[in-house]
Parts: sequence; structure tokens; C-alpha cells
Amino acid sequence: MKYRIGHGFDLHRLEPDLPLIVGGEQLAHDRGCAAHSDGDVVYHAVTDAVLGALGQEDIGQLFPDTDAEWKGADSRIFVEEAAKRMRDAGYAIGNLDVTVILQRPKLGPHKMAIRENLAELLGCAVEQVNLKGKTHEKVDALGENRAIACHVVVLLKREADGAGDSA
Amino acid sequence: MKYRIGHGFDLHRLEPDLPLIVGGEQLAHDRGCAAHSDGDVVYHAVTDAVLGALGQEDIGQLFPDTDAEWKGADSRIFVEEAAKRMRDAGYAIGNLDVTVILQRPKLGPHKMAIRENLAELLGCAVEQVNLKGKTHEKVDALGENRAIACHVVVLLKREADGAGDSA
Amino acid sequence: MKYRIGHGFDLHRLEPDLPLIVGGEQLAHDRGCAAHSDGDVVYHAVTDAVLGALGQEDIGQLFPDTDAEWKGADSRIFVEEAAKRMRDAGYAIGNLDVTVILQRPKLGPHKMAIRENLAELLGCAVEQVNLKGKTHEKVDALGENRAIACHVVVLLKREADGAGDSA
Repeated sequence: MKYRIGHGFDLHRLEPDLPLIVGGEQLAHDRGCAAHSDGDVVYHAVTDAVLGALGQEDIGQLFPDTDAEWKGADSRIFVEEAAKRMRDAGYAIGNLDVTVILQRPKLGPHKMAIRENLAELLGCAVEQVNLKGKTHEKVDALGENRAIACHVVVLLKREADGAGDSA
Repeated sequence: MKYRIGHGFDLHRLEPDLPLIVGGEQLAHDRGCAAHSDGDVVYHAVTDAVLGALGQEDIGQLFPDTDAEWKGADSRIFVEEAAKRMRDAGYAIGNLDVTVILQRPKLGPHKMAIRENLAELLGCAVEQVNLKGKTHEKVDALGENRAIACHVVVLLKREADGAGDSA
Repeated sequence: MKYRIGHGFDLHRLEPDLPLIVGGEQLAHDRGCAAHSDGDVVYHAVTDAVLGALGQEDIGQLFPDTDAEWKGADSRIFVEEAAKRMRDAGYAIGNLDVTVILQRPKLGPHKMAIRENLAELLGCAVEQVNLKGKTHEKVDALGENRAIACHVVVLLKREADGAGDSA
């Protein structure tokens, strides 16, 4: 197939006195993610979206949270592994769109830095990576700042497809 | 790129004695959206999906809710701006699929009117715009009719692409 | 259009002493879905994603839960109807990516069986169908094992497109 679509979702609880890492950036906040790795919902959801588009094992299968090796891990290694598998399968990023749901703090000041981080890890231009933040309007765990979530959609494109390939 | 994908999400609280506007239609209900503009989750999520596919600033950046200009605004202006930016970037709607999560009232009777509103604003045929309603089965804020949410996926297609353009 | 995108979402409450059917597989659990049909969130969300991509009536319109005919129905008939409509419209599955949000039990052991079920119903290869499970980290109804939800994105491709068809 010339194009493949993927969806990623991740959610982590926010708890006091932990760092809040989102898309490789540390955000100033009074709480952060309780997770086995560094709890980066953006990197996790992007990883799963790319792996999902490829139809490969997901982040939980490749990097089990029961494995001490990934304890406190920098989640960029998950995105790098997904990007490697994408290239090995002959695909490249068409574009991806990331929606972070977070009541506080504001994501805006970090938007470009996160896009640049993702573009570098995925081997594409920053114009192919989008990111937006939304609040959850104070309702439920997301709205009460007790959790952070992320949805990602990605479109992969097969590289080096011949002229006769119409699929 | 010939195709670009986007994702939009929006959620608003429902509160008594406010109008409930969904996709440009006013629904009869005992409550409506608490928001800076008219609180139209469909128009907001569609706007963000189109802007997201383009990799441009999101609705919160283009139309800040701290700006008095957008107080009580008709959200169709947000969709129109996204559509203009889409055309300026050389893209058109391939198709979009909108999922509204709303416990009550039923969205079915308004489905075609909302699709027509979106098609007009986005400059495409109604067959390229889909909309469905889902309940949240009485759980959490969405299920208890205290909020309304919307997910959108959109596929944009570059217009006037030459025969030699395989990307 | 050569490609069409769709999004499906479904959520059901989990209640004691009911079977838990996910993607056509019965999972061992102390509770299952309260629903008019068999409550299979994966089959329901996949059905809506395919119908949504086509811009056709959704699962709630085609199979109303007020209709006794669908009481306790095997949800595979919903996917089969969506697949038939897809073929009739001249489209085939490009690929789809399914994300199930379920606190317990683990979905991993059933992943391949569910992918095979979907591939058979949709008339595509198992490599075109992906599925992943995520928890909701113990927060809200999904995290407290009181509900199960599913997001699907699908890319449809028009079949038998001529060489001159660049759209």
C-alpha cells in the first residue's frame, strides 16, 4: 500500500512532585506523570500511531512496563525504534497531527520545540509534524489536572514507489 | 505532499439555560455550552483538524479566548478561516468524519443539516462530510450530560497536482 | 476520491455477570458489556469508521437499539453490512488501526485472533488490520473498569481505479 494510517492514544496520571515531560520537553508544573518510563504521553502515542500504521507490535509489547530495562527510560528511544521500523518497512512520515489534552499548564510556549523534537526523531520536516493542546474544561480526571492524555493520527507514505505503482 | 491528515478534538461543559449549538444548528435542550464563543464543539474540532492537517496555528492561537473580539462569536468564522488557509496552501477537502459524543438530545434529526453547513463552509460536497452521534452510556461528565465532545479526522488533498507528482 | 478516511468511537458500560466480547473474542473477566446487541465495542467502532468513511448512515441508524431484531445480536453482522456497503461503493480497506481502552483484562493474548476476525469480515489481509490495547490508568469509568471504549481510524482505497485517475 502506498499510504497507511495510524492512531495513537495514551494517558497518564499526574501526581505531585514528579517531572512533567511532554514531547521531550520538561514543563514547569507542580506535578508530573506517574509511569514506568518518563511518562511522556506524546512520545508514547506517536510511537503507537507509527507502529499501528505499520501493523506491528505496540509500545506495550515492545517495551513492557514489567521490564526493569525501561524503568525511568527516556521515551525518545521508543520513538526512535518506531521510526527505524518505519524505514525498514519502506515507509516515511507523510504527516502527523498530535492533540494533547491537558488542563494546565499551557502547551503553547513549548509547541515548536516539541514539533522539532518529533521531526528530528521521525526523520521528517517540522512542517510534517503538528501539535495542539486542549483543556478538558475542568471535568473528569483530565479536567481536574489529575491526568494528561494524547491522541495522534499519522499518515505514512511508502518511499521509492515506482511510477507503475498506483496502490 | 499530496495528502495530509488532521485530528480535531473539542469538549465543552453543558450548563443550564444556555443555547446548545452543534455544527451551526441550535438543538432543543435544557442546557448548552459554557464557552467564550458560541461553544460549537463541531465547528471548533473541524477547524482544528483542518489547521492541524496543514500544520498551522490552532484555533486557540488564532482566536484566543482572552480576546474580547471572539466573545459570543459565531463559530462559523473559525471554520471559514481554516478553509481559507487550506485553499491558500493549495489543498482541498478529501473527506472528513465527525464523531459527536453527547448523551442527550439525539443528533440524528440534525445530521444532514450539519453536514450541509460544513460542506458549504469547507467548499466541498456533502458526500465528503460525515457526522455521527454517540452517547457516553451515562458514565463520566459526557455520560451525565454535563459535557459534549467531538472528534474529527480529515484527509486533505492537494489541488492541481501535476501528473508527475507522485508524492 | 481515491482515498477516504473514517473515525469510529464506541463505549459500553461493564457490569457483573455478563460476557465480555471484544472483536469477536470472548475474554475471561468478571464482567461484560451492558448493551442491546452483544456489546462488542471493536466491531461497533469499526463498523462506524467504515460507514463514516463512506459518508453513509451510522450503526445507530442502520441497526437501531430500539429494534428487537438486534437484541443480543452477534455484532459481526454489523461489520459484514459495512463491508458490503464498502464494496458496493467501489472501495476496499487500505488499512485500519484500532485502539481499545480497557483497564482489565489484558488484550494482548487475543490481539491476533481479533485481527484475523476483522480481516476476514472486511475482506483484507491481517497485515491491513492493527489492534492495540491501552489502560486508562485507573481514572474515571474506563480506568475503574466500569467501561470499555474503542477508537478506530480507517483508510479506504477505491478499487479498480484507472491509470488516469489522480484524485
